[in-house]
Amino acid sequence: MIIILGAGGHAKVCAEALRSQRRGIVFEFRTTDFPIDERDEFVIGIGNLPVRRQIFDEYMRAGRTILSAIHLKTIIANDVELGDALQLMAGAIIQPGCKIGDNVIINTGASVDHDCTVGDHVHIAPGAVLCGEVTVGDMAFVGAGAIVPEGRKIPAYAFVPAGTIFK
Amino acid sequence: MIIILGAGGHAKVCAEALRSQRRGIVFEFRTTDFPIDERDEFVIGIGNLPVRRQIFDEYMRAGRTILSAIHLKTIIANDVELGDALQLMAGAIIQPGCKIGDNVIINTGASVDHDCTVGDHVHIAPGAVLCGEVTVGDMAFVGAGAIVPEGRKIPAYAFVPAGTIFK
Amino acid sequence: MIIILGAGGHAKVCAEALRSQRRGIVFEFRTTDFPIDERDEFVIGIGNLPVRRQIFDEYMRAGRTILSAIHLKTIIANDVELGDALQLMAGAIIQPGCKIGDNVIINTGASVDHDCTVGDHVHIAPGAVLCGEVTVGDMAFVGAGAIVPEGRKIPAYAFVPAGTIFK
Repeated sequence: MIIILGAGGHAKVCAEALRSQRRGIVFEFRTTDFPIDERDEFVIGIGNLPVRRQIFDEYMRAGRTILSAIHLKTIIANDVELGDALQLMAGAIIQPGCKIGDNVIINTGASVDHDCTVGDHVHIAPGAVLCGEVTVGDMAFVGAGAIVPEGRKIPAYAFVPAGTIFK
Repeated sequence: MIIILGAGGHAKVCAEALRSQRRGIVFEFRTTDFPIDERDEFVIGIGNLPVRRQIFDEYMRAGRTILSAIHLKTIIANDVELGDALQLMAGAIIQPGCKIGDNVIINTGASVDHDCTVGDHVHIAPGAVLCGEVTVGDMAFVGAGAIVPEGRKIPAYAFVPAGTIFK
Repeated sequence: MIIILGAGGHAKVCAEALRSQRRGIVFEFRTTDFPIDERDEFVIGIGNLPVRRQIFDEYMRAGRTILSAIHLKTIIANDVELGDALQLMAGAIIQPGCKIGDNVIINTGASVDHDCTVGDHVHIAPGAVLCGEVTVGDMAFVGAGAIVPEGRKIPAYAFVPAGTIFK
């Protein structure tokens, strides 16, 4: 059994990603105040970045393993370096030469082109497009359908609003 | 044989969706003034929403079955509730917890995130992105590449222009 | 062995497209000043349009074959007419009735809807959306995430900026 921390929409999408890889998988959705037994595998099913980071740090310090939830129908190039506790949703694409940090969400249909570097605890929202050689700092949020042209550097903790073009 | 009502671009895309599921399938494109024999299966291959609705209502009242055209290369979560006479085109994604009404088009590469409710006779145009928990009223049109942020409610009969962010 | 002309990001993405179709394929990245032996198969792994065109013209005049790089995870309708030396990247979609010229790039996750005509040496950048019946002239560049509504005609040599709506 796999525990999904959280019970909202993001938790469901994580569950669907896991199910896409293994039909018949069994989940339990749990709120964060419920302690996780050491034998249980779990996924951080919460979208909020500070909360995600806190859970990640706490459990990593305790030497626990946090599962990634990677949908079967993602396209991830051969040489991409992937961090821990990732959430790569249906239709997400990662092109060659990318480096993706820990605890990152690349959401529904978002694409990350060649040679991007994505920091830790980043959320690339649905349909966002990162062109080649983009850098995204830790804890940044790139909104739904936002466009990031080639070579741009998004600072840590930045908030790129939905549907905008990052200058 | 399957009849596709209409002979324009949308009819072709419907035919392609059906063909993706079954190689060698045979079609006949027909204009709407040609009566459809009761033994024939058919698809509404017309993009115009009022016309689609009229055909849907007329044939449903007559107790006929209207086929859905769902491309093989769509990604539809396990628990999504799907209406009748749907047209889900190549690359479309529907995440968990969604409810999709009757006679809806979710066009090329459009994505509908978790817990959205899409009414009847809606057209989500190519590349549009609906974030989580969006509601779309009956007969609404969401233009190509439009972005609908989390939780927004699009009224019935609304027209969201291509490339805009729905506020 | 396949030679990829170029050694930048676009070359890597071409290599990944080829690898998706044939695991274990062997590449050599080469700069354009290095002559290509007549026995070698090659791909133009350079994004710059005038340079791409020059290489294409030179080698075609010499009677050479230039390979296409078409990612396995593209969706290309049954009846699409495809030119030579194409580069169709991961997640790209081409709907029925389209005609795609020579030496065209349709990049990551871009979609080209029914009955579009795309000229030679065109680059449709990542995430761009062409609606139905669009015409794109030779050497045009359609930027990342740009939206081209139904029936528009993009002139030859046009530059459509990233994230814009082509009027």
